[in-house]
Amino acid sequence: MTYYQQHQSDFLEGLKTFLRIPSISTLSEHKPDIRRAADFALNELRAAGMTKAELIEGTGNPLVYAEWLGAPGKPTILFYGHYDVQPPDPLDEWKSPPFEPEVRGNDIFARGACDDKGQVLIQIKAVEGLLKTTGKLPVNVKFLLEGEEETGGEHIEEYVKSKPPRLKADAAVVCDTEMFAPEMPTICVGLRGMVYYELTVQGADHDLHSGVYGGAAPNPMQAVAEIICALKDRDGHIKIPGFYDRVKPPSALERQAWARLPFDEKEYTEKEMGARELVGEPEVPLFERVWARPTLEVHGIRGGFTGEGAKTVIPARAVAKISTRLVGDQRVDEAMAQFKAAVKAATPKGVTAEVKMLHSGEPSLTNPDNPFIHASAEAMKQVFGKETVYIRSGGSIPVVGVFDRYLGVPSVMMGFGLPDDNLHAPNEKFHLPNFYRGIEAVARYLEILGQ
Amino acid sequence: MTYYQQHQSDFLEGLKTFLRIPSISTLSEHKPDIRRAADFALNELRAAGMTKAELIEGTGNPLVYAEWLGAPGKPTILFYGHYDVQPPDPLDEWKSPPFEPEVRGNDIFARGACDDKGQVLIQIKAVEGLLKTTGKLPVNVKFLLEGEEETGGEHIEEYVKSKPPRLKADAAVVCDTEMFAPEMPTICVGLRGMVYYELTVQGADHDLHSGVYGGAAPNPMQAVAEIICALKDRDGHIKIPGFYDRVKPPSALERQAWARLPFDEKEYTEKEMGARELVGEPEVPLFERVWARPTLEVHGIRGGFTGEGAKTVIPARAVAKISTRLVGDQRVDEAMAQFKAAVKAATPKGVTAEVKMLHSGEPSLTNPDNPFIHASAEAMKQVFGKETVYIRSGGSIPVVGVFDRYLGVPSVMMGFGLPDDNLHAPNEKFHLPNFYRGIEAVARYLEILGQ
Repeated sequence: MTYYQQHQSDFLEGLKTFLRIPSISTLSEHKPDIRRAADFALNELRAAGMTKAELIEGTGNPLVYAEWLGAPGKPTILFYGHYDVQPPDPLDEWKSPPFEPEVRGNDIFARGACDDKGQVLIQIKAVEGLLKTTGKLPVNVKFLLEGEEETGGEHIEEYVKSKPPRLKADAAVVCDTEMFAPEMPTICVGLRGMVYYELTVQGADHDLHSGVYGGAAPNPMQAVAEIICALKDRDGHIKIPGFYDRVKPPSALERQAWARLPFDEKEYTEKEMGARELVGEPEVPLFERVWARPTLEVHGIRGGFTGEGAKTVIPARAVAKISTRLVGDQRVDEAMAQFKAAVKAATPKGVTAEVKMLHSGEPSLTNPDNPFIHASAEAMKQVFGKETVYIRSGGSIPVVGVFDRYLGVPSVMMGFGLPDDNLHAPNEKFHLPNFYRGIEAVARYLEILGQ
Repeated sequence: MTYYQQHQSDFLEGLKTFLRIPSISTLSEHKPDIRRAADFALNELRAAGMTKAELIEGTGNPLVYAEWLGAPGKPTILFYGHYDVQPPDPLDEWKSPPFEPEVRGNDIFARGACDDKGQVLIQIKAVEGLLKTTGKLPVNVKFLLEGEEETGGEHIEEYVKSKPPRLKADAAVVCDTEMFAPEMPTICVGLRGMVYYELTVQGADHDLHSGVYGGAAPNPMQAVAEIICALKDRDGHIKIPGFYDRVKPPSALERQAWARLPFDEKEYTEKEMGARELVGEPEVPLFERVWARPTLEVHGIRGGFTGEGAKTVIPARAVAKISTRLVGDQRVDEAMAQFKAAVKAATPKGVTAEVKMLHSGEPSLTNPDNPFIHASAEAMKQVFGKETVYIRSGGSIPVVGVFDRYLGVPSVMMGFGLPDDNLHAPNEKFHLPNFYRGIEAVARYLEILGQ
């Protein structure tokens, strides 16, 4: 029995403790929890045997740094993860409270279980096992964990931008993605970028009675609807002028590989998504729609009356949360300028519209033909017993582009989530067999790299 | 000095006490306040000298009834008003708390000040003054006050429908409208009807990550926007098939009278509404747009993420509050069927849409050529010192149609609100000189009718 097998219940207890901290970075009242989560990760790194573990303070939430550099001549790996989580709402849809982790069957349910506390702990426990059993690591290892991934904070980007010598590495390992299917080891080689906006539409300076003024007063709710419809058509085509200009189609090889992936559309639609049917650009195949095409999604609209019963009010203001995902050679600055111009053109009479950018990240695409990715594919194959597949993800991990741009290192995205893990949704979970095998796979990865 | 002049400070104290009761009928947690407000009105009626004052219990909030029938051979007037109020949100826009009435200058600020507690008290205090000073009333008087006007409760309609003998009357007097301008006594002869809907659009059965599923998942927020845009165009034309079929234009005489009303469009737009410009059907004159044309307004959209920061979620559900106002020969049942059919036709792929009716009232139009309206015009002219004008209101007072249909009595809408009283909005107020003159005008009205 290996160290990893012996300590599974300790790993689980550690994960539960981590998950009990409601480190929600989008809500300022959770600042103390953010710090508790950072301290927890720091202590875990120290206990694992990492050196120079410390918090890096800056403009936002602290970064957690640690290193072990006892393998001269060997490559250096920079582990990345985040200790912050998404807000848990809507709370009433959780079967168990989001910050009281509960194991049901082979899964642990809690906000952050998969995204990303479970996967951060995979990295730490992998290193811990090697250090505890052999007293050393096969390669040099650094950790850089952040607490603003879910809120688009700029602390990590600012820090990496300054190119501190201690971040020097040969490759980054990001554990924040998912496997294509259960039992199918997966490396993600492409991520969509994103820009997240708050669109504020203002009509009158106070709410108006819809009986008295209906027919004369501008209605910001109606205006938001008109702007949204002007930005995207009923078939899912984004109508922002120029938006598709820099979109690159996937290569023929990639398309062929995607077509070979085992896939049950009915299962995906009805079980995983819980939907009736798929939507989106009808002429684009599914994987391409979610991995290699830009999107525009409305997340919510605030304003007016939404409570119980009826209130006949024309709201003074409506605030919409809208994001676009970016792919290929699309860039945040240009996409934002296009979005703002399209909103301006679509704004109806009688209201003003203001666009504020809350969050952004460039898209990224990694060439899979490099030794750090090959080693990862091999390690996962050995642990999971199956050939590793290469996919992209529709999500965004802005730090991957940041590591590429400022440190010049490729990111290896070894992810252990599952498609039905309910990221950013109620009842987020992490599949415990993946937690335990993930730890072993990361340890195996370091061993292969050290050979 | 008359009784009315002597007792102004008592009237004001009474109004403040009434306004301190948060009798919000749309929120079930305020049930006890509803009862307190009903009891308050009941006790005021008793103290005024009305007889047989009692609560009429039924399916919803109690009706308050009282009568004084000591004028045989004289006409009988049925006073109507409502003791319930709108919710106060958005709370943070109130300059003083909505249920702590505050007098600033000549105005009293509180939820319900004008709509309708101030005007209910006008009726009661008018009767009180006559009874206290002369020991009798010039005509027979009945009161029927309700507590569900703002929530579309059906108690009053059910009760009136049963045609109880004690509601027999020659005319109803409704004090729940406004004057066209300060110092301009006004009688309202037309009201729009309304149907208030809750539109629930469901996509997947749980919230989805917009990165992972964006491009494939149905987005109910986007779908609501598409439905809204299909129901009304950018120029304010309702696109529901058949919706305008039974709309009747105002008569040439009415149009001429409206054109003579003193009106400053800039003042109306910028001061009263606090807007930049007016919108709505460009080919229709303003008063006709707000008094004699149907509308469709979105009041709010619930669902998804609207909090601080960024949450990348495709919501499972969006719930929109939408109402239409009706005019002319439009009828609730037909308008609702048209609305539902239009929503069904506009519902995009991947989502289901369900329409629930929360509230409705038929439009009404009174022929101004009747003695009860003539007497009212004369009474207001005597008290305010100016000729009374006839207008319509864009709002809805469903009970007017109910009195007409089931009791066969015309309603005299003597209103004492002002256009800037912020009905249904933060900082609702009532102009105290109108409160005091309103009491005198109603008393004078009863005297004229008794002659």
